[in-house]
Formats: sequence, structure tokens, C-alpha cells
Amino acid sequence: MPELDRRDPEGAVAEAAKRCSNWGRWGADDVLGTLNFLDDAKRREGAALVRRGAAFSLAQSFDMNGPQRGWRRRTNPVHTMLDTGVDAERGTQGFPHGIGGADDVVFMPLQASTQWDGLGHIFDHGRAWNGRRAGDVVTSDGDRVTGIETAAARIAGRGVLLDVGRALGADGELPDGFAVTAGHLAATIAAQGGSARVGRGDLVCVRTGRLARARREGWGDYAGGASPGLSFTTAGWLHGTEIAGLATDTWGFEVRPNEFDDAFQPLHQVAIPHIGLYIGEMWDLDALAADCAADGRYDFWLTAAPLPVTGAVGAPVNPIAVK
Amino acid sequence: MPELDRRDPEGAVAEAAKRCSNWGRWGADDVLGTLNFLDDAKRREGAALVRRGAAFSLAQSFDMNGPQRGWRRRTNPVHTMLDTGVDAERGTQGFPHGIGGADDVVFMPLQASTQWDGLGHIFDHGRAWNGRRAGDVVTSDGDRVTGIETAAARIAGRGVLLDVGRALGADGELPDGFAVTAGHLAATIAAQGGSARVGRGDLVCVRTGRLARARREGWGDYAGGASPGLSFTTAGWLHGTEIAGLATDTWGFEVRPNEFDDAFQPLHQVAIPHIGLYIGEMWDLDALAADCAADGRYDFWLTAAPLPVTGAVGAPVNPIAVK
Amino acid sequence: MPELDRRDPEGAVAEAAKRCSNWGRWGADDVLGTLNFLDDAKRREGAALVRRGAAFSLAQSFDMNGPQRGWRRRTNPVHTMLDTGVDAERGTQGFPHGIGGADDVVFMPLQASTQWDGLGHIFDHGRAWNGRRAGDVVTSDGDRVTGIETAAARIAGRGVLLDVGRALGADGELPDGFAVTAGHLAATIAAQGGSARVGRGDLVCVRTGRLARARREGWGDYAGGASPGLSFTTAGWLHGTEIAGLATDTWGFEVRPNEFDDAFQPLHQVAIPHIGLYIGEMWDLDALAADCAADGRYDFWLTAAPLPVTGAVGAPVNPIAVK
Amino acid sequence: MPELDRRDPEGAVAEAAKRCSNWGRWGADDVLGTLNFLDDAKRREGAALVRRGAAFSLAQSFDMNGPQRGWRRRTNPVHTMLDTGVDAERGTQGFPHGIGGADDVVFMPLQASTQWDGLGHIFDHGRAWNGRRAGDVVTSDGDRVTGIETAAARIAGRGVLLDVGRALGADGELPDGFAVTAGHLAATIAAQGGSARVGRGDLVCVRTGRLARARREGWGDYAGGASPGLSFTTAGWLHGTEIAGLATDTWGFEVRPNEFDDAFQPLHQVAIPHIGLYIGEMWDLDALAADCAADGRYDFWLTAAPLPVTGAVGAPVNPIAVK
Repeated sequence: MPELDRRDPEGAVAEAAKRCSNWGRWGADDVLGTLNFLDDAKRREGAALVRRGAAFSLAQSFDMNGPQRGWRRRTNPVHTMLDTGVDAERGTQGFPHGIGGADDVVFMPLQASTQWDGLGHIFDHGRAWNGRRAGDVVTSDGDRVTGIETAAARIAGRGVLLDVGRALGADGELPDGFAVTAGHLAATIAAQGGSARVGRGDLVCVRTGRLARARREGWGDYAGGASPGLSFTTAGWLHGTEIAGLATDTWGFEVRPNEFDDAFQPLHQVAIPHIGLYIGEMWDLDALAADCAADGRYDFWLTAAPLPVTGAVGAPVNPIAVK
Repeated sequence: MPELDRRDPEGAVAEAAKRCSNWGRWGADDVLGTLNFLDDAKRREGAALVRRGAAFSLAQSFDMNGPQRGWRRRTNPVHTMLDTGVDAERGTQGFPHGIGGADDVVFMPLQASTQWDGLGHIFDHGRAWNGRRAGDVVTSDGDRVTGIETAAARIAGRGVLLDVGRALGADGELPDGFAVTAGHLAATIAAQGGSARVGRGDLVCVRTGRLARARREGWGDYAGGASPGLSFTTAGWLHGTEIAGLATDTWGFEVRPNEFDDAFQPLHQVAIPHIGLYIGEMWDLDALAADCAADGRYDFWLTAAPLPVTGAVGAPVNPIAVK
Repeated sequence: MPELDRRDPEGAVAEAAKRCSNWGRWGADDVLGTLNFLDDAKRREGAALVRRGAAFSLAQSFDMNGPQRGWRRRTNPVHTMLDTGVDAERGTQGFPHGIGGADDVVFMPLQASTQWDGLGHIFDHGRAWNGRRAGDVVTSDGDRVTGIETAAARIAGRGVLLDVGRALGADGELPDGFAVTAGHLAATIAAQGGSARVGRGDLVCVRTGRLARARREGWGDYAGGASPGLSFTTAGWLHGTEIAGLATDTWGFEVRPNEFDDAFQPLHQVAIPHIGLYIGEMWDLDALAADCAADGRYDFWLTAAPLPVTGAVGAPVNPIAVK
Repeated sequence: MPELDRRDPEGAVAEAAKRCSNWGRWGADDVLGTLNFLDDAKRREGAALVRRGAAFSLAQSFDMNGPQRGWRRRTNPVHTMLDTGVDAERGTQGFPHGIGGADDVVFMPLQASTQWDGLGHIFDHGRAWNGRRAGDVVTSDGDRVTGIETAAARIAGRGVLLDVGRALGADGELPDGFAVTAGHLAATIAAQGGSARVGRGDLVCVRTGRLARARREGWGDYAGGASPGLSFTTAGWLHGTEIAGLATDTWGFEVRPNEFDDAFQPLHQVAIPHIGLYIGEMWDLDALAADCAADGRYDFWLTAAPLPVTGAVGAPVNPIAVK
């Protein structure tokens, strides 16, 4: 792997895109990208990992106590009530025989909290996944081709936690700006043992410890600020391992600041439109990681079914790991 | 079971509530209700049901093509874009090195489409689950006690489909107004065979065929209008089976019109605040049902993790069944 | 005026656009269109019309009891509470010294109810007002050139009511499909007398009676269905009178069905991008009209200041007429 | 006026409430409070103030560049597009004859930007305006009694600017924490001359310079932080002058920090439920103030018609002053 030329993100993206492209791999009509790697056999393998039946939600909370600060109109979720128990108890809701109800509504950016990026989320020079024109895919009506609903029934299989924070960090956390390389991932796998092997169709969860730090110190710049994350140089690893998806406990999956002088999320630009990779962000891996550290088992059954908002380019998810 | 007195829903609710109450069963502080029945052993049992690895999403779509008509301010989900591929392709988004993006936001009632009712959704004479005052539980700030986030990691286990529509209906559909009794459920279980047994901790999916009819004929009054559904008289069955949750393919779980002259969802009034039952509504069971009819296996590994909107009294969910 | 060729809306639009264009009239940078006609002198003239001091709101209500049915994701306004008096009275809001509060939020399409169309609302073959490329004007970020905020301080002046429904209709209402021509407008002005004269810089309110009918019979297809409204042939009148804006009591300003075999709002296509005309829709002119009929005075001081949502292509407004 | 006892806001509120109460003044059914003072004669007086015809919008912008930081779920307005010019220019919207369109939607707290507080916004010990129980007025359904729509046609009349910042401050701005007393208001009126007299039915605009400072220095804590504003001791002045409404260029109308050791907006607690006063907040008075300083005329025609969201306890407004 040559050194990155910090002055040339565009060249680096072009080179990696060429090297890692999956365009056409599943036909011209494909809308699933790397989810194609996640097949029924992988689900059987995943289900067989349930030993104790212990379940973990990998979702952060969905509320105003979130990291969003309005960047590009991304607010935290706003939850309001249409009816309340206070009203019901007062008896003024107009229902018969003593029944009362509460009901509610939410307004939220689909990537406000724990989420999957859909394949229509990121483009490279106006091209979306599988080589389509971005404007043919995502209009004001949403993603008419690769909308998140196409993945509604797909994302359940074998999950693997790579707790890089615990394996290589101090007190379980990598520092901000730490670029996780393929070497770091390999070292983590080696440290964690056989249950941490990563292969075709797996759903990989990379824990950096960034969320634990935010939980301790406050959100600060969690959304968009400095953070550990995947190095741009992992593009080849993401492509070569043939994993189905990868999620992190950070806002933006890749290391920040990015590894170029003037850049914005260059690894996304390769991973989503070219590899067709499903990327998860803002997952809460801490409780699961503690359990894995305790029992030494790093793989598990994972269901991470996005809320199938039609045409969404990303979607909230409550991922459930079961060991 | 005596006949229902159509003129006295309040009396019937009171009687059933007394007979079926789980208040205090799991202590005064309990917030989970029947989810307490769903334990690690049940998850092991559920995971062991994965034979082929075939996955089914039981979610309807989340979009404007939904059944909502504004009743009590329930609209269909409104999905809008913050950025689009058309913009990205035009190259005016202001990002460097050719990266472009799309992003989006949703406004939706939490019970607009496929959902779980939380335990704070329904009250009986001002009382919520476990005997709490409704106004102590759900204020304008949401459900501060039994909010749906309390169930975030819980709802994964053994699912059982009771396809009453196929077992007892014509062309797989029960007519509107058909009240499904405990007898009908037993007959369906008997018809479906051993994999359809129902017991403690199970997640039961009752298919009436109402959604299939809406899909064929248009939404019409799907939301709130006439429908097959559970009879009020099933309260004892819901309580006695010790199931963890029950979901239907209808708007409102119970038969409509309700079985009293002047009533509104009386079975909810028993099931949620008194039994502490998790109720799912507007699930799409059709593809799963076809598969079950084909292979004769009616139980499966079900993960139905609600989106954990803090304080929500109901939540959207993309349930995933794996056989 | 030649007959309209019902088979050729595109040709008719092109001809009228050429004939009525104001492109360049106020310079290449203009963002105000016909609001340029509304100057300080016109405001002095308008204010001088206040005789009794009687004020009329010309706004419909903004709530769920509106005409919207979800067309292109236009819902009715959804208003929810962040805090309520019920909560305040219960004393659980956490404020000191007995103060309590209520607060609220709204989600609404900007053209859900009484509104102004902004100049970025409609395009002709990809061209916006003053000849700009539509895509240079309105992106996912909103209207960056002619956003409604540019008109924030402008729309106060002399209002004139043309009560065509009362002048030419039966019981004050024109039938659905009635195309109001320049001749009808002239006849109405003549019938109403000198206070109804229309000229440069005026804000003209055309009452058809369609809203009165909806109020009596229910919304039905008020939003998008059959309606009286301006004939396509009034383009020349709209241009030649040099009015500053025109509002109606209908959903869509122009007659519906439109006067071509296969068309959608062709008069908009001339009026907004070519004339640069401010168009108001869904105004409630009934109370004002009754007053005008009673005292025979059809002009008044009108303030119709749009809510200045930055970049909006339309905006809700509570127009206030004072006589 | 005795000194305030900083340790006893509750006592001070009770005393002022008793002294300044307008309960019953306009009958038991009144929903308008001090707007009753604003009559047709006052509107005639206001209209006569239009000399030049110059119009000023007193609205701040409604967008994400606002001061809100999420306190009690108050976000800045989120404006998103349903259709765009980029889409229209691309020609994929599905409309005939070359017409294209843009459309949009907004989600916003009703008090996110320039607004009127409605009479249901604040309560004193569970009592709303005119002595009603707060819970009888504002439920989850909104304000069913004094909703802002009751004021839809009312708020147009004589406006008076009291530029306390310019009269008594340094460089036109009062410092944060500066409590504007009745004495300061009188001094400002005296300094400004006869056009600044204040009396029954007037709409008073008090400029502190706080917004000018935020414009220069950034929003910082504009929303809820330290600010100049009315002293609690002005309650008597607000009551005795019989003004119809009062608006400021600050977030919260009254001085902050409040003038008691542990208090939250105590003047609101007197002004809204007891005086029945309409309070405007976050108005942009700077351009108008510059004009008044230049020509020495401090009164003007003012239309400040709230967006009539049914049941709202506050409402956005684009106030228009004409001189």
C-alpha cells in the first residue's frame, strides 16, 4: 500500500474506486450491493451462534439528547405527543367506557441517530451505486432505485465485533484522529481469537470507544468533529473481505479529520457507490463489547433491519445482537 | 364464557380486567409487562428454529401510500429530502473531490404503519400498566416510565403464525366484523399442527387476511373501519397463554365494529393496562404466511425490535422472521 | 382573443409567455416580479382607504380540518403540543413559583392553507422567473434567489375585491369548471362600481364562491378537483393591468379542469415564471365580501405579509384587510 | 414601588397579579384580553400615520440560522423541499407541456422565531387568562379556548417604537441584565417626543439592542441567556397604560437573569394570565428604529397578524410597519 498523497484526495478516490469496484458484479439491475453476500447459509450460521439467548440492543437513544447540531439541517429527533395520560386521567378525551389513550409523532432526520446509510446516500462525481447517474436514482421524491426498503428483509446474519478500542486503545478508547488500518483490524482479530474471524457476508461492528468517550464527556463534536475511524486505506479490506456491511460507534465511520488536506469523507465515496457497501453509523456497541470481552466470543446473531421508509437514503435501526 | 352484554362495555371491561390482571406480578416497578415472559431460554428456542435461513420482513411500507386519513392527527409518514442525487449530479452541493450526497428526514406518527403499542398507549379509567396513574406515566414529555425504549433489547424470540384467515376464511380472508375467538385460535392451531403450538413467552402473529384485502381493493377504511380481529372474549386467552406479545395484520388488533353498542377498542383497555401485553398492529404477514402454508412450519425466529424513540407510547418496527 | 386550441397547451403557453413576458423589465437581478408595481405611493393610497377601521382576516384555518389529501405529500397542518395546561395544572413541569407553560410545534406544507406562491414555485421548460435556470434557483436547499423572504416587507397596499361569484353567479357562487375571463372581470368591476377599479400595483382578490361551497358541502375535492377559476385567456389581463398580485378563494387560482385536454395549471406556467406575478390561493374572502356588498366599497387597505421562511417557494399568510 | 424581595418571586407575583388583574373586565367568556383595547378607532388612528408609505418587516428570518438550541424541544425551523427546480429542469417530474414546480414543507416550533405569545402560553398556579383552569384551556389538542386563531383579525393598529437601547444605552444597545423600568420607558418616550406617546390600544415595540448584538456577535445564548428586558416592576405600567400588546427584540421579553434568586419569567406569569397581555418576542426592530431615529417619528401603522394555527398557544408572525 503506497502512502496517501494528502494533496490528492480525488486521485486517491479514483484509484481506490477502480481497484475496489463491484459495479456489474450482480448485474446491471442490482440494488443490494454487498448485501448480496448475506445469504441464507450465512443466516443459518448466524442463528447457530445463539448460545445463551442474551440480547443486546445496539441502538443509541432517539431523542433530543443527541449529538446533532443542525449541520445540513440534521436536528435531533423531536418527539411530541398527540394525546397524553394526563389528559386521559382528566377524562376529557371523549372516549367511552373509561378508556383513555396516548399517542405520539416524531420528526427526525433519518440519520439523526443509529442508522444504516443506504446505497443512495453517497455519490462519486455524479454516479451512484452500480454506475447509475445520481440524478436518476435520488430525486426530491427520494431514492427510487436503491431506497432502503429494498434492504428491509435482508440484514440478519452473523455479526462480528472488532473491538479495536479495547484491543489497541488506552482504557478501551482510540484517540480522536486515529486511523484504523487493515493492519489494526487484523491485529484486533488476532487478539480476539477465532470467533472474530471476518469473511464473506458478515456484518462487522467496529468499536473505537468514541461513543464511550462522548457518554463520559458530553456530545461535544461527536457529530462531525474529530474521531477515530477507518482509514481511507481500508477500502481494499472492505472490498476484499466481501463483508455485507460494517458499522461503527462513531458519527461518520471513517477517521476524522480525514487523511487528506481538503477532503470530506473520501472513504464513503469509494465504499458506497463503488463497493456497494452498507455502512452503519452511531451504533452503541459498548454493552455488547463488555459481554464479548467477558466471554471471549466475538460473533453473534445480528438482526439490523432498517425502518423501511420508502425511498430513504438512510434509515434508523435498532440492531439486536443475540449471543 | 357468558355472552357479552352489548349494552355494558364498561362492566365487561371491569370483569375481564379483574380476571386477567397482571398488576404486581413482576413487582411494583415493572415496566415490561408480558415481555417478562420472553427470556433467554425462549430466545434459544427461537434461534433453533432457523432451518433454511430464509428471512421475511413483516413491515408494511412507510410512505404516503398508507392507510392513515388524519384521525386524531395521524397522517401517513411524510419523507422529504435534505439533499438529492439530482443536486449532486449538478455539482452544486459544495463538497470537495467530487463527492456528493443525499440525505433525508421523516415526519410520522409513531403508529402510522407497522408498529408496537407501548404499555403507555392505553389506560383504563386513568390507570396505566401495573396500576400507575396515567398522568404519572405519560405527560407532554412522553412516557417517562414505560417508554418504548425499555423494550429496545427485548423483542426477539419464538414467533408463531396463526393464519386464521387461511384456516377458517374464504380465500384466505376473514370477513370484516369477524370476531376471532379463543375457539377459532385453537382450531387454527389444530389445523396448522405442532409447530403452531402457543405458550409462555411466544410472539404470536395472527393473520386475518385484512391487509391482503386492502392490498387488492385499496386502503378504504383499513384505518379504523370494519375489520376482522380478536374478540373481546379472547382476553382470558391472551392472559392465560402467557404470551409475550401478539400482532395482527389489521389496523386495530381487535374486531371492528367492536362487540358492544357504544364502544371503542375495549380489548385494548384490558390487554394493555391490565395484562401488560405488547400488541403489534398493521403487520404484513402475507409473504410469511404463504411460506408457512407451503412448508407446514408455523414457528420461526422473530426479531421485532421497536425503534427506541425515548418516551414513545408506540413505535415503528421492521419485524424480521427467519425460518 | 382567438379560441384556445384544446389540443395544444404547450403552444398556447408559449404564445402567451411571449406576449406577456416581463423578463428583464426590472433588470437581470430582479427577484420581485410584479411586486415592483407596489410602491410607497400605492401604500399611501391603500392606507387612505381605512374609513371605519374594520379589520378582516382573509385566512382559512391552519389545522387538520383542511382540504389537503396528500397529493404530492401535501398534508394538512399537524399541530402538536410540547407542553400543555393540563400538565401545568398538575404541577409537574418543574418550573418555580407556580408558573406553568404551554408550547407547541407545527409540521405543514407551506401551501397547505392560505398562501402566496413564490416566484420559485413554477417553471416553464426549466426556466424560472426572469429567465433563470430553474435548477440555479431552487435546489434541495430551497429557493436561493427568489425565496419568499425577499417579499417579506413588500405586500401591503391597496386591495380590491372582485366578487365574481356574487356578480355573475347564482347565490353568490360560480359553478365548478367556470372559466373567469377578462370579460367577466370587467363586468364585475362595472357592477361593483368605482371602488372596484383595478390598476397598477393593486392586490386583487377574486372571489368565486368555491370556498363558501366547500364550507357548506364539505371539502370534497376542493384541493385539486373541479373549481371555478381564472381562464387561461386572462394572461393578457394579468399582464396588462400591471397588478402586483392576485388571490382567489380556490385551491388553484385557475379554472379546473383546465381548458386543455391534457394540461396541468397552464396559466401558472405563464403567470409565475413569465409575468412574475404573485398568486394567492385558498384565501377566505367571504366575510370581507359580505361587508363590501353591504357598503358598496370594494377597495381596502390590505397587508398580506408572507411568513418569511428562508428559501420558501410559497408561504402561509394571514392577510388582513382594513376598511 | 417597593424594592423587590429577591427571595420571594411567588409573593411578588401574587401581589402584582392582584394589583394588575383584568379578570372579568370583558366578561367571563372573554378570549382576547388586552386586544379588546384595540378597536376600530385605533385602527383609523393607525392608518392615518401612513405618510410616506415606507414598509418594514419586523420579522427575523425563519431558518436553521436561528437562535434555538433545543431547550424544551424548541429547534430552529427545518424547511425541506417536496419538489425542486433542479428536478424540474431535469424534466422528470411527470407534468405535461413543460410545466415544472417546486414545493416545500416546514417543521417548526411556533415560537422558534418572531412570534406572539398567545393567552394560553403561560399560567399562574394552574390558572389561565380570565381565571380559567389551565387544563380546561390547553390540552394535547391545543388551546381550545384562547387559541391564537381568536386573534387572527385583530392585531392591526397604531404601533409605537420605544427605542430604549438608543435612548439610554451605549451605541444603541442596553447591556445584558439591564432591567427596563417604567422610568426608563418614560424617559425614552420623553426623549423621543410626542409621536412616542403610549396609550390605550397601542402596540408597543421595545427595542433593547439585544438582537443587534446577536447579529454582530453570533447567537450565543440569545435564546434563554442573559439579556436586557422589561423589569418585573413594569407590571403596573403594562396594566395601567392599557396597551394592546408589547413586543421586544429579545428572546424572552423580560430581563434575564430574572430579578429574583430562583425564578423563571415571573413577569410573564403576571402579564399573560392576569393582564391578558399579548407579548411579542424576537422581533427585529432595527431597520424600523433607524428610520424612526432619522425622521423623528416613532409611531406607525402596524399589522402583526399571527399565523392562525388553530389552537396554537403562540404563533409566528411577519409584522409589517408602515410609516
